[in-house]
Amino acid sequence: MPLITFKPSGKQIEVPPGTELLQAARDAGISIDSPCGGKGSCGKCIVHVLSGNIESDSLGVLPRTAVADGYVLACKTKVLTDPVEVEVPEQIGKSGGKFTKATTEDFSLIRQELLPERYEYEPLTIKWLINVPKPQLEDGLSDYDRLCRALKKFWGECEIVCSLPVLRKIPETLREKDGAATFTIIYDRGRCYLIDIQPGDTTVHHYGIAVDIGTTTVAVELVHLYLGEVISVRSDYNDQIDCGLDVISRINYAKKPERLEELRKRVLDSVNRLVRQTAETHNVALRDISTAVISGNTTMIHLLLGINPEYIRLEPYTPAIRESPFLTAEEVGIAINPQAWLYFSPHVASYVGGDITAGILCTDLAVEGSEICLFIDIGTNGELVIGNSEFMLTCACSAGPAFEGGGIEFGMRAALGAVERVNVDPKTGKATYWTIGNVKAKGICGSGMISLLASLFISGWIEPSGKLDRTRKSKYVIIEGRHARYIIVPAKESANGKDITISEMDIENMIRAKAAIYSACNLMLEQVQMTFDDLSKIYIAGGFGRSLDLEKAIIIGLIPDLPREKFHYIGNSSLMGTYMVLMSKEFREKQLELAKKMTYVELNTSPSYMDQYTGALFLPHTDINRFPTVKKLKDSFSTK
Amino acid sequence: MPLITFKPSGKQIEVPPGTELLQAARDAGISIDSPCGGKGSCGKCIVHVLSGNIESDSLGVLPRTAVADGYVLACKTKVLTDPVEVEVPEQIGKSGGKFTKATTEDFSLIRQELLPERYEYEPLTIKWLINVPKPQLEDGLSDYDRLCRALKKFWGECEIVCSLPVLRKIPETLREKDGAATFTIIYDRGRCYLIDIQPGDTTVHHYGIAVDIGTTTVAVELVHLYLGEVISVRSDYNDQIDCGLDVISRINYAKKPERLEELRKRVLDSVNRLVRQTAETHNVALRDISTAVISGNTTMIHLLLGINPEYIRLEPYTPAIRESPFLTAEEVGIAINPQAWLYFSPHVASYVGGDITAGILCTDLAVEGSEICLFIDIGTNGELVIGNSEFMLTCACSAGPAFEGGGIEFGMRAALGAVERVNVDPKTGKATYWTIGNVKAKGICGSGMISLLASLFISGWIEPSGKLDRTRKSKYVIIEGRHARYIIVPAKESANGKDITISEMDIENMIRAKAAIYSACNLMLEQVQMTFDDLSKIYIAGGFGRSLDLEKAIIIGLIPDLPREKFHYIGNSSLMGTYMVLMSKEFREKQLELAKKMTYVELNTSPSYMDQYTGALFLPHTDINRFPTVKKLKDSFSTK
Repeated sequence: MPLITFKPSGKQIEVPPGTELLQAARDAGISIDSPCGGKGSCGKCIVHVLSGNIESDSLGVLPRTAVADGYVLACKTKVLTDPVEVEVPEQIGKSGGKFTKATTEDFSLIRQELLPERYEYEPLTIKWLINVPKPQLEDGLSDYDRLCRALKKFWGECEIVCSLPVLRKIPETLREKDGAATFTIIYDRGRCYLIDIQPGDTTVHHYGIAVDIGTTTVAVELVHLYLGEVISVRSDYNDQIDCGLDVISRINYAKKPERLEELRKRVLDSVNRLVRQTAETHNVALRDISTAVISGNTTMIHLLLGINPEYIRLEPYTPAIRESPFLTAEEVGIAINPQAWLYFSPHVASYVGGDITAGILCTDLAVEGSEICLFIDIGTNGELVIGNSEFMLTCACSAGPAFEGGGIEFGMRAALGAVERVNVDPKTGKATYWTIGNVKAKGICGSGMISLLASLFISGWIEPSGKLDRTRKSKYVIIEGRHARYIIVPAKESANGKDITISEMDIENMIRAKAAIYSACNLMLEQVQMTFDDLSKIYIAGGFGRSLDLEKAIIIGLIPDLPREKFHYIGNSSLMGTYMVLMSKEFREKQLELAKKMTYVELNTSPSYMDQYTGALFLPHTDINRFPTVKKLKDSFSTK
Repeated sequence: MPLITFKPSGKQIEVPPGTELLQAARDAGISIDSPCGGKGSCGKCIVHVLSGNIESDSLGVLPRTAVADGYVLACKTKVLTDPVEVEVPEQIGKSGGKFTKATTEDFSLIRQELLPERYEYEPLTIKWLINVPKPQLEDGLSDYDRLCRALKKFWGECEIVCSLPVLRKIPETLREKDGAATFTIIYDRGRCYLIDIQPGDTTVHHYGIAVDIGTTTVAVELVHLYLGEVISVRSDYNDQIDCGLDVISRINYAKKPERLEELRKRVLDSVNRLVRQTAETHNVALRDISTAVISGNTTMIHLLLGINPEYIRLEPYTPAIRESPFLTAEEVGIAINPQAWLYFSPHVASYVGGDITAGILCTDLAVEGSEICLFIDIGTNGELVIGNSEFMLTCACSAGPAFEGGGIEFGMRAALGAVERVNVDPKTGKATYWTIGNVKAKGICGSGMISLLASLFISGWIEPSGKLDRTRKSKYVIIEGRHARYIIVPAKESANGKDITISEMDIENMIRAKAAIYSACNLMLEQVQMTFDDLSKIYIAGGFGRSLDLEKAIIIGLIPDLPREKFHYIGNSSLMGTYMVLMSKEFREKQLELAKKMTYVELNTSPSYMDQYTGALFLPHTDINRFPTVKKLKDSFSTK
């Protein structure tokens, strides 16, 4: 067994080959800080290998030059068969901080199970404590010269880029703690961008945000980059909703420059409100948030940046940008460290944006050698991707915001008080329902509406056309002239003391939305000369709610009637993918590669699209034979 | 003689080897635009060499990749002995613009004779007309993608960096003139920074500014980069004067953050006022000014950037920066194109700044293989450089603003109405004087005061100590108790109808200023174990006025009594050097090299400095034998 000697204490231990250095040190009674728990993200377990061979899985946050000098992270390094001599720096023993997870946060938006088991932790920014020598009369160096030298000593030869606000902080910062200062750095192609400099050791205060900007919903995740953990998630409506429900209405609204500016401010308000909420809950200073990764559909990102989106709408449907250049938080207006860099997920085309290139990162489409998969992102726009790691086709259809609670009288986001599941009694028409948080109902979210529609249809209270059955009496079905509505939650049970209902117009909106998605899937498969049966996996992403009841989604004809094990509901995959891009360069590179592989197909120019769409404007479809399970279920109910 | 064939016309001509292509074309009756007159700065005479060997002196504004493809500037290219086939692009025949030189401008600040005869024209920014292809449905490219491709096609593989405001302009700009757009570009180490984009051909509207920020005086030169010509020069007092006359007082004033901010705004106001004046006089749009090179002493640049200058004043006298990173006009607050880059002349130390590294560019100190020279920049601080292209020592002394008209009751800048030369009648004491512009006198400038002091001394009206002679009667010498003053311009001749006088206190200030300069020169020479006789050239720079009367400067002991041909008065060499840096990368590189070569010597810590200084507090010096010419002159006057 190899003998390990720890310096300066001289303590020794023999361990089996393959033992982690961090474990060996602990076994030898040597304390090495590891606040991130071995993720390689905090860099606190750095040790210097003086002699002997070791094997490192990963550099973690270490720059290459430090590794070349024999520095490794003890948590990522295994001993082999040789004896090893290791120098352990003095431990500061700083705690990694404690974080309470507040209940108002929506951790259901994150699905950690989608994260690959192994990946290289490499966020855009790193924070590193560096000791800058004191000023000397003799050397003739400026503060900035000394700072650059200290940085290059650690980081290797590179060009250092520093903004004026950071420059202004240098003289005081270098004198406050005798030259000990924490540098927030972005290293990009030979340039070292100095994002911030703080006196003393502030490496623990290192945060990033993942931002998902949808047409209807905005979500923000606050990530503790030092620990590599999500500490807060919040979502809310996009404040732009008042200016139009879908991207086309927003583009039309933005025609005048002052309205483009209004839309820009509205979405910034939404994002910044969520950023502040996540930060305040955990006492995180906004200036310690030094990176943001932002994903959104092409129009949303144009509006966020104040770029005229008009040519997205006009033939030949050309976006101004697909890959955004790096921009600072200050110039865009995101309320984090003003010098923080913003990274935007790349778009594929005018109607397939960064939310999709982020989303497919969580699927087998991003995995080499996978079989054919279909990815469906059901948002205000529906986007589809079909293919595998070899080829990918993508298209978009306009579903409208119904599944996110938009354009529906009592629709709401999947938040506290939203009805998320409904059963309808076939005889009385009475609804039994479940709300998020088990509180009084405030409205109904996407998953609730799918559940409700399926239940009303199966129990015979609505026709395949979506009309409420006027022939049977129920105190829950209210006929108002030519219109009718259905009471989901009676006034006495609701949060505001009024009936929560769904109208025939709401139902029509839902049916149009699901028809758009289903017919787009169908047409896309036809174009690649495939059928639903050729698919190995179908990923469904979207903001319906915490879960999607597959059976009910099939009953209403939103998704095809296929073996259930083929379906994977992955929730807000855009947010998840955005988080992945924030965590690792590996995913940033993968995403760019995927975006380049994707070919955009324009469905609207296809002559059969209208036929397909019209055929799908029924529950579940005009051709019920496409949905054998639903047919069987419906028949069994009718015979009861 | 080689045969030259011009395409597409097919015109041919035989010319002697060594003929310029531009000349050959003209001789063949082919019109090629050359608005810059063969400087290589406008790039309009670009031609494509299809076959045959040619020799280009310089790439001019052409990127290397274009040259690799066979493009050359006809004005910089000679034919050799081979036949040559050249394609001439269609000529737009745009005029280079006409510029009237307004009389209120101060062209005396520029000394074109200091400019090396040959240098590579290569300003920081170039403006180039590029045709960007129209959007296509099939290619799936964004506006930005097409723009980058078009740029790389011309410029070669590079990373393109684009700010948000420029990004926002792209969609409209690419559609306004069918994709023809003028790009303002900075190419720096593999990155192509897009500073601006304008529809159509605006290459003629390409301007830069050279800015010299002194403690007392600020000067701005507007340069037409397309023509390679200075079109306007203005100077004015630095608005910071109200907050202290020298750098130490300014640093003390800046101790509170709000006062640092006040100083920043004051100098910005001064610079921006001059920038606007130069631009307005010539109808130049501020957004067409896309580069600025700024030189100033270390403290002035710290204050301009809002960086705390306190540690410049405290031991070990450490500036925050010597070489400034690139900053945009917007972040610094200079009123030109907001995305324009600012380039700052590098500083050597806390008391030898970018004005000096710019200034020595105009001297033999910047020339390989030169003999030992002394460079004296007489401003509010006096800075000296001694050496040659091999070694350079530099030091600074505090002269005060007397030579720029500061701290003198009727002192003024060398502007319209300033007394610039004075003769004093030995018998009556009456002054005969000359003003700038031959208008009524408003005050007296640096050169006027040197002239006055010398004349008063030689004619016996002041003692070597600087006191006015009270024993002789003159209506121009007014005794007021223990003080006395001398009337230079009587009330009835002056612009405001009041006497223009000089007091004994003013004379004392002048003597202190000249003593500081002279003793610093002396001490510096001692430190390198040399004497004045070892110097081959002495450059005198400063803002005294249009010229410096050497004899009179020697009479008062400002400069040593040496053969007159060794002296070279080079005026505002900082502004001239700044202009050179603006015009060519060659000078930017040379300046950085010079700055690195210079070693700073601290005079204040030298024990003999005080003795030397005290010895120089006389006219011309306590040891008159140092000034044999003056002794002789004085003697000849006394015997009259």
